[in-house]
Amino acid sequence: MSAEDHAVPRRPVYTAADLDGIAHLGTLPGEAPFVRGVHRTMHAGKPWTIRQYAGYADATASNLAFRTALAQGTQGLSVAFDLPTHRGYDSDHPLAQADVGMAGVAIDSVEDMKRLFEGIALDRVSVSMTMSGAVLPVLAAFLVAGEESGVPLAQLSGTIQNDILKEYMVRNAWIFAPGPSMRIAGDVVAWLARHVPRFNGMSISGYHFQEAGADPVLELALTLANGRAYVEAIRERGIGVDAFCGTLSFFFGVGKDFYLEIAKLRAARLLWWEIVQAAGGTSARAGALRMHCQTSGWSLTARQPQNNVVRTTVEAMAAVFGGTQSLHTNAYDEALALPGADASRLARDTQLILQREMGLCDVADPWAGSYMMESLTGEVARKVRALMAEIEARGGVHAALASGWVHAMIARSAARTQARIDSGEQAIIGVNQFVAPDEEPACFAVDGRAVLAAQAQRLATLKAGRDPAALRRALSALTAAARGGSGNLLALAIDAMRCRATVGECTAALEQVWPRHQASPVFAQGEYGGGRAEDAAWEQAAARVRALGARLGRAPRILVAKLGLDGHDRGAKAVAAALSDAGFAVTLGPLFRQPEDVAAEVARGGFDAVGISTLAGAHLALLPRFLQALAAARLRTPVFAGGIVPDADARLLLGLGVRALFGPGTAMEAIVRQIAGVLEEAEAALHDGRIRASADAA
Amino acid sequence: MSAEDHAVPRRPVYTAADLDGIAHLGTLPGEAPFVRGVHRTMHAGKPWTIRQYAGYADATASNLAFRTALAQGTQGLSVAFDLPTHRGYDSDHPLAQADVGMAGVAIDSVEDMKRLFEGIALDRVSVSMTMSGAVLPVLAAFLVAGEESGVPLAQLSGTIQNDILKEYMVRNAWIFAPGPSMRIAGDVVAWLARHVPRFNGMSISGYHFQEAGADPVLELALTLANGRAYVEAIRERGIGVDAFCGTLSFFFGVGKDFYLEIAKLRAARLLWWEIVQAAGGTSARAGALRMHCQTSGWSLTARQPQNNVVRTTVEAMAAVFGGTQSLHTNAYDEALALPGADASRLARDTQLILQREMGLCDVADPWAGSYMMESLTGEVARKVRALMAEIEARGGVHAALASGWVHAMIARSAARTQARIDSGEQAIIGVNQFVAPDEEPACFAVDGRAVLAAQAQRLATLKAGRDPAALRRALSALTAAARGGSGNLLALAIDAMRCRATVGECTAALEQVWPRHQASPVFAQGEYGGGRAEDAAWEQAAARVRALGARLGRAPRILVAKLGLDGHDRGAKAVAAALSDAGFAVTLGPLFRQPEDVAAEVARGGFDAVGISTLAGAHLALLPRFLQALAAARLRTPVFAGGIVPDADARLLLGLGVRALFGPGTAMEAIVRQIAGVLEEAEAALHDGRIRASADAA
Repeated sequence: MSAEDHAVPRRPVYTAADLDGIAHLGTLPGEAPFVRGVHRTMHAGKPWTIRQYAGYADATASNLAFRTALAQGTQGLSVAFDLPTHRGYDSDHPLAQADVGMAGVAIDSVEDMKRLFEGIALDRVSVSMTMSGAVLPVLAAFLVAGEESGVPLAQLSGTIQNDILKEYMVRNAWIFAPGPSMRIAGDVVAWLARHVPRFNGMSISGYHFQEAGADPVLELALTLANGRAYVEAIRERGIGVDAFCGTLSFFFGVGKDFYLEIAKLRAARLLWWEIVQAAGGTSARAGALRMHCQTSGWSLTARQPQNNVVRTTVEAMAAVFGGTQSLHTNAYDEALALPGADASRLARDTQLILQREMGLCDVADPWAGSYMMESLTGEVARKVRALMAEIEARGGVHAALASGWVHAMIARSAARTQARIDSGEQAIIGVNQFVAPDEEPACFAVDGRAVLAAQAQRLATLKAGRDPAALRRALSALTAAARGGSGNLLALAIDAMRCRATVGECTAALEQVWPRHQASPVFAQGEYGGGRAEDAAWEQAAARVRALGARLGRAPRILVAKLGLDGHDRGAKAVAAALSDAGFAVTLGPLFRQPEDVAAEVARGGFDAVGISTLAGAHLALLPRFLQALAAARLRTPVFAGGIVPDADARLLLGLGVRALFGPGTAMEAIVRQIAGVLEEAEAALHDGRIRASADAA
Repeated sequence: MSAEDHAVPRRPVYTAADLDGIAHLGTLPGEAPFVRGVHRTMHAGKPWTIRQYAGYADATASNLAFRTALAQGTQGLSVAFDLPTHRGYDSDHPLAQADVGMAGVAIDSVEDMKRLFEGIALDRVSVSMTMSGAVLPVLAAFLVAGEESGVPLAQLSGTIQNDILKEYMVRNAWIFAPGPSMRIAGDVVAWLARHVPRFNGMSISGYHFQEAGADPVLELALTLANGRAYVEAIRERGIGVDAFCGTLSFFFGVGKDFYLEIAKLRAARLLWWEIVQAAGGTSARAGALRMHCQTSGWSLTARQPQNNVVRTTVEAMAAVFGGTQSLHTNAYDEALALPGADASRLARDTQLILQREMGLCDVADPWAGSYMMESLTGEVARKVRALMAEIEARGGVHAALASGWVHAMIARSAARTQARIDSGEQAIIGVNQFVAPDEEPACFAVDGRAVLAAQAQRLATLKAGRDPAALRRALSALTAAARGGSGNLLALAIDAMRCRATVGECTAALEQVWPRHQASPVFAQGEYGGGRAEDAAWEQAAARVRALGARLGRAPRILVAKLGLDGHDRGAKAVAAALSDAGFAVTLGPLFRQPEDVAAEVARGGFDAVGISTLAGAHLALLPRFLQALAAARLRTPVFAGGIVPDADARLLLGLGVRALFGPGTAMEAIVRQIAGVLEEAEAALHDGRIRASADAA
């Protein structure tokens, strides 16, 4: 099946004839196959939970933000962790330095968790934790913190993401290889289902596929294929499907294709019901797909950021019409920086207005019966079934992942979308149509160094107050369980957390058995250029690269790399794909490299240019170090950077020698032109030098 | 039929059974009765026109704004006129002074119209003019300006509002009495249908009913009843229904009740088809209701104004789903002042994003078949038919208007809604729920005095260059036609405009036969208080008024008045209703009074307080004059003011002696409390004075 086959075309007019042959018609909300929603009266009886994903640097700051948000209408919490926490490094780890507190809250131990939830009634407020890599120590720290604040495990409610498969596919916040990671995921689900029944043991995520560039059909197919893989893996441990499936939840992105996104969410429930039935599930709870949704981050623009309020509103409506159980709405300034206070309030008010002012909750599944919507729902279900069958034919998700097929499918979808945007075929108001002069917005900035210093101090205090023998025993038990293959890892992680182990120590105990996973990044070739073959602006830019290549006698070489722990690689892959299709010889560097390592690779590879992608707020720590490392190696390779960089930081980086910074929404031909221009100058200078040298010699 | 009967309740779940007995199912877009839209593929074939209502002070400034808007994506123009133009006063008329250029552009003559459209291709850009009172001179000036710029009349396209009935009902921009006004309206439709076939001769408006507080069913019933009255009036002149009905268009407001608003627009087409059929229309063009929509102004809040972006987006989507032909989206700051440039751009981008980014245009009438939407459409149609039958039973709209029934119905609906908002039953995020601290926004301000001086200069120049004899003949012909009852008034107004008559002179020529109309304002009694009978905050405020009345030995007396040409009286009526229900003896003053006249009424009436409502931006010109007039009459009556007043102006007015200013969204109990507090102090001082006086006497 090719990417074109995922497209779900719309017809201008639908009639009752379009309902012919649609099997899911005639069912009610709250009834299998739940296409009309999981509750009998849906939002009329129980509005969705307003759950805003947030995390600010330090646990105390985040706690204040959570308490303020709860007072102002937020109904459930969702914790954003910083990258070192995701990757299982304590804040004082050398590799963590640049990223502590930058993209979320830094959690090293139970004590940090306790500060994070101080004064929040964990028996009443549900907590979602977007954590999959370091799931064992982080979830354990939460459970112990809850317990120590007086809330029995049985009363804690919330969701742990614990979806490791999509990390290998797109999000890149894995620690170990797929095999041990699946064991960890299963241990978490099994233990929670038994001991913390109100806690969802897994949130199977489509959101990150959409953010990586997958179209809605591909997003849903990969998500459900992963869900099916988890069900099979847990069932193989001898646990009945009905006993755990009810604790699995889902997480979808909701993008700009309004009608299709609603149909996607309706079809998701229909298909999950089918999958659980096929796996032997019999209870309604096991087969009823419950979901959290988030409006699309990719659809946010850095130019005219207030326009994002409109996009987010429409996307949120699609999630509501799709019957979501909880929702995160993005703040309009998130394409520029971490969200500011006013933008966060407006994002939350967006949900409150939809929920309380516009009458949207009054009717369950209001689109039911719509000729178009029922037709689209059936069509999405049909295409997703076909794609899942293809994954099955390729040996299942693990095999499809290992073979590179999954990455290729996503990269292809992303490259095509990017080509449609850059060619103007897909409109983005204020970016590729009706562009207004730029203004400089105020950005929210995190002082990562202050967080780092405070966390290091706290770690020292924590470590000074522990029982070393008990701690050693607990960590050894964790290592032994990893090695021996038996014993529930979450239960043992909880024991270790009670002894005040740190996130990094728990992870290190497992690393003794399971080394950190490495992955080779893949980008699409031919898709982007193919999508713009007829486009003069693109062709002119690519022609410059070809001409440069002719003068050099080879394709100009560029390294596209990321620095530090930031695994957001959609942008890097998209740029790599476009540069490659423009005629560059592109090397896409592996993730999680330190600046000095990348500088060494530049030296080895003889690159003509380097492009650094930075999306996690650590650019001020890592880019200068990279420039210094290049200088130390006497390399004058021109450095370009792209990603979310506030204007003030951009000026600083340009002052330090970065040749150009490309913000979100920059058209690929502009990137190609600018890099080509710098290389043309360098080539001309070299050429002049040769002429002068030969004239001198003559 | 009572106001409750207009409510269209929602059920939490709809099924296919809800489609039983709905007659309009099974029809296609572009086919009678057009419930699915007037075109075969609707927005997929022809997206709606982005038409932003705008007018800035002076014709030259407005021209620049129009040309900028056209360059930036606006697709059709809609002219906002200032109040003197609406009421047929030239800018140099003594009664016009405070309002020239304040709420729209000042147009005195053909020359102003030519400046307004300079450089705009009137054969390609359609122009909507929101003008009903001074329709003859203003439309004539436009037609002559077009002709003199080289565009033949047959090529001009656009819409003239020319809907005088709703002016008597709610908007108050009438000049003459209903009888002559209906003659004018008919002359305009007849002449345009024959000579300017691409120009809609009438835009029958529901928008202003919604803004005045009517619920959607009442809005639609009154609009269609007015439409039916126009059809009958024009048909009586011997013109065939098929010959003119196709040039009538409609204008609806779209408020926050999302599902109902969509159903309303679908039902509107269905019902208009029925009305035109019943009147003898046979052609599809005559019976296909084409509409312009505007998002609700009433739903905009002055607090947390950015939240209005969300409201406007949802309302705009309802208009799109309802199948509108053109749309105005409000700027988010319009509850504070005239829209600023950034807010205007965002309002326009809202439409561009909906039209080009979210896929909304791909499918015609996407809700078709939805159990809920088809059921609501049928229900709205049923209730509107019943209400129209009641109007018919009361002798038609003219009789229902003259008897006060129309005003009473609207006032009742408005008072009930206000009670639901103030009691918190109807949520407004940021106003009565989740209120955040206020911030002071930057406001757009008009320098009315500069416009006035420039217009006076232009009028003098114009008048110096005319042929006095030709002008006299043209104006006399207009007067004669009004007196004699024959001759098309628009044709004669065009002749007068060619001779460079002014708007004021044309109006004065008609005033010789038809005196200016006067009306007595009506407000609802009992509805607001009834809606809050159980509400402690309201009851406590009202108890203070009763206690004050007991001490005074009579109900405290308050005059609620408007100053100048501003006819926006929903706020004044709502406050009058609430104050009356709280226990004040309320007099609601007539519209269009000068400050000195109102001061004289205060002196005559022995009022304890005065409340001035100001919504048209003339507060700085009129309120200080009113305070001076009170002072000159040695009156110390406390003055309160309400309406849209920027903070800086508010501080100035408070410094001049206004006791309190109530912005949009102020709860009625807060107004009651504050007025009662001031009167309590006055009463106590008086009481103390009496005690001291009797002690002195003792």
